[in-house]
Amino acid sequence: MLSAYLVIAHGSREQNSNEDFFSFLERFRAALPGHLIEGAFLECAPPSIPDALEKCASRGAGEICVIPFMLFSGRHVKEDIPRFIQEAKSRHPEIDFHYASPLADHPAMIGLLADKIETFKPLKGKL
Amino acid sequence: MLSAYLVIAHGSREQNSNEDFFSFLERFRAALPGHLIEGAFLECAPPSIPDALEKCASRGAGEICVIPFMLFSGRHVKEDIPRFIQEAKSRHPEIDFHYASPLADHPAMIGLLADKIETFKPLKGKL
Repeated sequence: MLSAYLVIAHGSREQNSNEDFFSFLERFRAALPGHLIEGAFLECAPPSIPDALEKCASRGAGEICVIPFMLFSGRHVKEDIPRFIQEAKSRHPEIDFHYASPLADHPAMIGLLADKIETFKPLKGKL
Repeated sequence: MLSAYLVIAHGSREQNSNEDFFSFLERFRAALPGHLIEGAFLECAPPSIPDALEKCASRGAGEICVIPFMLFSGRHVKEDIPRFIQEAKSRHPEIDFHYASPLADHPAMIGLLADKIETFKPLKGKL
């Protein structure tokens, strides 16, 4: 069965920020060859979540694993994205949908933020 | 010189989400004993960024290192937070202010997201 992975960012009115997400997604795909990985924005910019879910379905995915690229379980993670998934599920009852937790609960996030502190120590770049 | 580290989350109308940030911050402090670490929200909930910056100053910080706990360089990272820092700098010209980049540019973020994909493989929790 083909698995699709849909990574969902919030989206920004700043196009540069959205391009940073696409660039991140390219690095992510390169790190996971052989995986079908799509991206979408919750708001502000295309591709939309429904469009990206349809794209996964049209590629023949038997399951779609949705990963919110968001830090905490706010309204977007708890209500908005699940609503889009339910809508897709009603259109595609033959597809299994799975949903990941947001990022901040990952233990590695502590080390990642600690690295940010380390970068201040030698650089001391003043604002 | 005392260094203070101010971690800034976006803030949510969901109080649970804001509490997740405080909980994260507690784990972060525990991982970095001896560091003065404060937290603030850009919007929706206290403490505000100005209040947290003043708290760092009142504790005698000679420098304040501001870390946006946000994924990309959108408007909040590029405009809103720097404005608060500039305002604090004008009130406290004796303090050095530093500013970190957002999270998604950290190489470890790729592995963190790849772990999310791994969790789908054994669990297959259906929505």
